[in-house]
Amino acid sequence: MLKDIKALLLDVQGTLTTRDEHGRNILVGGVRLIEHARRTGRRILVLTNATKRNEAILNDLRGAGLPLEDGEILSAGQATGLYLREKRGACRLWILGERSLGEELAKYGHEIVNDTSEKPHFVVVGLDRELTFEKLNTALAHLRSGAELIGCHASKRIPEKDREIISVGPIVKALEYASDKQAIIIGKPSRVMYEMALAKLRVNPHEALMISDELKNDLLPAKDIGMKTALTLTGVTKRQDLERSEIKPDIVVENIDDLVSFL
Amino acid sequence: MLKDIKALLLDVQGTLTTRDEHGRNILVGGVRLIEHARRTGRRILVLTNATKRNEAILNDLRGAGLPLEDGEILSAGQATGLYLREKRGACRLWILGERSLGEELAKYGHEIVNDTSEKPHFVVVGLDRELTFEKLNTALAHLRSGAELIGCHASKRIPEKDREIISVGPIVKALEYASDKQAIIIGKPSRVMYEMALAKLRVNPHEALMISDELKNDLLPAKDIGMKTALTLTGVTKRQDLERSEIKPDIVVENIDDLVSFL
Repeated sequence: MLKDIKALLLDVQGTLTTRDEHGRNILVGGVRLIEHARRTGRRILVLTNATKRNEAILNDLRGAGLPLEDGEILSAGQATGLYLREKRGACRLWILGERSLGEELAKYGHEIVNDTSEKPHFVVVGLDRELTFEKLNTALAHLRSGAELIGCHASKRIPEKDREIISVGPIVKALEYASDKQAIIIGKPSRVMYEMALAKLRVNPHEALMISDELKNDLLPAKDIGMKTALTLTGVTKRQDLERSEIKPDIVVENIDDLVSFL
Repeated sequence: MLKDIKALLLDVQGTLTTRDEHGRNILVGGVRLIEHARRTGRRILVLTNATKRNEAILNDLRGAGLPLEDGEILSAGQATGLYLREKRGACRLWILGERSLGEELAKYGHEIVNDTSEKPHFVVVGLDRELTFEKLNTALAHLRSGAELIGCHASKRIPEKDREIISVGPIVKALEYASDKQAIIIGKPSRVMYEMALAKLRVNPHEALMISDELKNDLLPAKDIGMKTALTLTGVTKRQDLERSEIKPDIVVENIDDLVSFL
């Protein structure tokens, strides 16, 4: 059933890699699948909600052992930079996120505003492990002065070492409520990211297979847009979660590399 | 029309006081109304979403010149402490808020948990000008371990000096989204606070007059519960806002003291 697939979209955390107790990326699988895809002429795209420089994400994945090439990635930071350039041209952005997100966004011609006296066109929210009350208040002031709100994605939590931490979605919800504005969401589960991936891969939805360990945030929107979906059981979703869920992927495998025999 | 009113519920910020450019409370009005209420046998209750010690709030108001007596206040912190004691007895609480909120909550027999290894029954969110990412993550961990979420109130913003800052509501929204839990809201605009005020004043809803500069958060819920409502124009609501609003208070005055001639 998956022989017609021309492109593979790969989630990262829980699908390709996981983190050990020191927070380092360790491989879950993917080497065999990527090599098989190259042999059989399938295109590959890592689809990640990470909000830092693409190069840093690719280096992490290569460091974990994955044979990925330059350009085989679409991250939420990159997608945000591309979306804004396409819809609005070069913009002035105020970033609630880490330095590396600013570096990624600047690649697409946007100006990163630091001085609070300058009026940005957009407040862009990414993951910020150094979030402070002051940053939230500056974001609010910019929003009240006319800036629009962009969420690089809307994930609720991300795993980190032995716990889960607050991701981008909760901060976007806080700023929406505080400012009476509605955010534009770019990354998963937003359609924007999936449409951008299809355009980059030059394939139709039914020719693309989204592979992830997560049903609601990753596979459901892929299914909604007409992609095929594959669930891996190496991450957050267990077999009993799948049985309870109304979201039914086209295929379920223990490990991402088990997909080789279907492709 | 207001002669039958037996109790006055007074909002603080924008109604009784405002802040000067140094952040100090200065009086907007209220002395004449309070004195008139005493002469005519009306009970008085300051109804505030402040989440610090009641004594500190009363001292601020007296410092601004208002002749208020002990007990003539119901704050969101106090209401939270009373609500939890009534519904659940003495609880273990983890507080995302300032020290003064913990002091207020402890008055009602609750234990304030500081050590992150102890499991609280509730995460209580108040105003926290020293909010950090770490505090949000600790709150999330407690919620994921079974604690319930309480918002002392759900206000969006509060004025501070020459700007508005993030209030309690946005932080509650962030934690609700991150944890997949729904918060119990105590202060305005929640019914809980208004019902508690009526019980404290021993009056029926139609015998109580809620006085505030704010339509949606303060006067609408008062109206919904059957109270009479008076809007003052010394705060956030201007006459043109009132004209555009679907919320129609029973009476509109420039200054709170203008109510004297109606009571």
